[in-house]
Amino acid sequence: MGIKEDARNMKLASPVLAASPIEQRNAALELVARRLREGADAVFAANAQDMAAAEEAGVVAPVMKRLRFDEAKLADVIAGIEQLISLPDPLGVQQLARELDEGLELRRFSCPIGVIGVIFEARPDALVQISTLCLKSGNCAILKGGRETAATNRALFGIIKDAAVEAGLPAECLLQAEAHSEIDELLGCHESVDLLIPRGSNAFVSYIMNNTKIPVMGHADGICHIYVDAAADQDACLPVIVDSKTQYTAACNAVETILVNRAIAGEFLPKLARAMADAGVTLHAEDEVRQIIGCEPLGEDGFAHEYLSLDASVRLVGSLDEAIDHINRFGSHHTDAIMTEDDAAADRFVQMVDSAGVYRNCSTRFADGFRYGFGAEVGISTGKIHARGPVGLEGLVTYKYKLVGHGHIVGDYASGKRHFTHRDL
Amino acid sequence: MGIKEDARNMKLASPVLAASPIEQRNAALELVARRLREGADAVFAANAQDMAAAEEAGVVAPVMKRLRFDEAKLADVIAGIEQLISLPDPLGVQQLARELDEGLELRRFSCPIGVIGVIFEARPDALVQISTLCLKSGNCAILKGGRETAATNRALFGIIKDAAVEAGLPAECLLQAEAHSEIDELLGCHESVDLLIPRGSNAFVSYIMNNTKIPVMGHADGICHIYVDAAADQDACLPVIVDSKTQYTAACNAVETILVNRAIAGEFLPKLARAMADAGVTLHAEDEVRQIIGCEPLGEDGFAHEYLSLDASVRLVGSLDEAIDHINRFGSHHTDAIMTEDDAAADRFVQMVDSAGVYRNCSTRFADGFRYGFGAEVGISTGKIHARGPVGLEGLVTYKYKLVGHGHIVGDYASGKRHFTHRDL
Repeated sequence: MGIKEDARNMKLASPVLAASPIEQRNAALELVARRLREGADAVFAANAQDMAAAEEAGVVAPVMKRLRFDEAKLADVIAGIEQLISLPDPLGVQQLARELDEGLELRRFSCPIGVIGVIFEARPDALVQISTLCLKSGNCAILKGGRETAATNRALFGIIKDAAVEAGLPAECLLQAEAHSEIDELLGCHESVDLLIPRGSNAFVSYIMNNTKIPVMGHADGICHIYVDAAADQDACLPVIVDSKTQYTAACNAVETILVNRAIAGEFLPKLARAMADAGVTLHAEDEVRQIIGCEPLGEDGFAHEYLSLDASVRLVGSLDEAIDHINRFGSHHTDAIMTEDDAAADRFVQMVDSAGVYRNCSTRFADGFRYGFGAEVGISTGKIHARGPVGLEGLVTYKYKLVGHGHIVGDYASGKRHFTHRDL
Repeated sequence: MGIKEDARNMKLASPVLAASPIEQRNAALELVARRLREGADAVFAANAQDMAAAEEAGVVAPVMKRLRFDEAKLADVIAGIEQLISLPDPLGVQQLARELDEGLELRRFSCPIGVIGVIFEARPDALVQISTLCLKSGNCAILKGGRETAATNRALFGIIKDAAVEAGLPAECLLQAEAHSEIDELLGCHESVDLLIPRGSNAFVSYIMNNTKIPVMGHADGICHIYVDAAADQDACLPVIVDSKTQYTAACNAVETILVNRAIAGEFLPKLARAMADAGVTLHAEDEVRQIIGCEPLGEDGFAHEYLSLDASVRLVGSLDEAIDHINRFGSHHTDAIMTEDDAAADRFVQMVDSAGVYRNCSTRFADGFRYGFGAEVGISTGKIHARGPVGLEGLVTYKYKLVGHGHIVGDYASGKRHFTHRDL
């Protein structure tokens, strides 16, 4: 059976999962955690296969680290599942209750989106996080993970799906796509799949966005900025900049461009250059900066470049507004920070910068569902439609309007025989 | 200057509109209402031109009614603006406040989407509703109305934009596109336009959805159902069905298919046939129904047909679940109703039908922003991403996360030196 037919069956079964009581969804998550503990050895053995193949293929050390699934990662995902169980049910939440007229009551309730396709990088812990977030939020999910961890994914998926079905959830709740060719098949399932969440490289996410009619949530690039204001506490902001750049360089929320107010350039740039050099970071800039501190020239795409490495661009700006304008033009509306002790400057920055995360005096690396306390995330959205920033349970639900009447007809209101009361209940 | 450049300038100016205080946005709406009253004669004169041209072109009476902009329509749109002014500010609403750790506070605030393109049918009152909804919600808007009311649109748009600018809102807040060719230009503005809302025929909306990278909110078709349950109050539901079909046949929320429980078919179908014949409605059905009441056969596309005329399909179903399955398969997830006195049946219908509106014992024609008490609507969304059902102010905003720290870095949490508190404030 192809993905298309599987997706169609999933779509028809999705109201059954949507209607499952929270006790059943939480029981399923508890069983998933238990079965993961019981089946750990098989998962570790599968992971050893993947790791051996990756080593043979010459995969570099930082990527190897992401492929690994060991006791520590198992403990992390189980802690994540436990946090997820403790969160309130995101479904059936009444968001509006209004009497339209006597006996005619409108209510709005949260409900699952339906069928979600998630395509993610080779990180076995991501498979666990994504599938459990979808189960808790009552969404059916089609999962396609990176092929470098195919054996680990298969082992984890088998355990999770079996546990979900054993707990009474419909057999169609989860589906794993394993062949790369199935991605294109999935992109054509606009009649059955309600939302796609692609994670991975800029090029990959852009490919997905350009080749499907299904709504896509996620982000292509992550060009995050830190603006060092004239009123910044210069020494206090250095560790924040270093953390934003180096704590995990391959992450979308790592800083790529540091904007510095020209008024403090002479004093601050040498401090910045020293701190970054100590952290192994190479700076890139235009001549104005290079005349103050020796550093590399900018690359061909200038300030639109996402390094994802121990490199950062530096630029001088004449004012707060110039910094805001630079960020809104060159940024990717992901996460941008201001370093300042001036409340008015911080307020203006937060108001005017058009990004999912607008920070003051802290690291851009905090942009993450776990750090925000969402339990986990399926991804980070730089879109403004539906969910923005880290997407947890709340971003995985929509709502429906329920209207209950007693034979009410619109003709009576159009003719003026009856009038709306519009009274909140 | 082309739309692309205009849209780019609008995008850069959009934070200024987003930051405008509610007093200024409401003052702008008040001025819009005043200037519309003062300029009414010029608008009526422009409308007379449009009406004369339409009459010459042989436009049919029900469409002529939509093109007309007279004292009554003016009073309606001004009442709408006044309702809009009275609604609370949808911007800057704090949706989340959480301490992540001591001194590190996360807040989520509502903010405008940014730049919205709305392409709508030839209805001058729609231009007023859409532009004032966008102003109240702090969104810049590019408006393209139907060409049959070009002169009226130009007159109304001029008054609204001048009033907005006079009230201090940025000159880039509103833009009118007049040439049909500008629609294709607008579809290519994915770097500047955050959302497109197309209204109009199924074919037109589908064209928009298939030819842009910009997120699209709206609906192509509206195949709404009424299911008459075995436990329905048969006499009470007849006027509801007639209203759902005939109160405005060209509307997306008019009913197209009536599902009847087989257990009551012998008794109910003749009553339905009589009521519908009295209202001038032609029924279409398969043989099983035609053996009970004489009616037309179904067309080629069967139950997937949207009549938008005084026609409706009828089908017998064996159970509530068969009705739910039919609606989820053939419906367009717009608005579907059950007629029943059985609470359990109603609850199951509301839970399992995957539509934006799920109604009990009332007309599907209630699916409308004004009737829901949203002031007005920019459209009705059958998508599940972002907004669903009638889209008013709330559907025109997104949010941003604001994080304020005191030099907090992620490295301290990764190393275990510090721990998140995740305490709601």
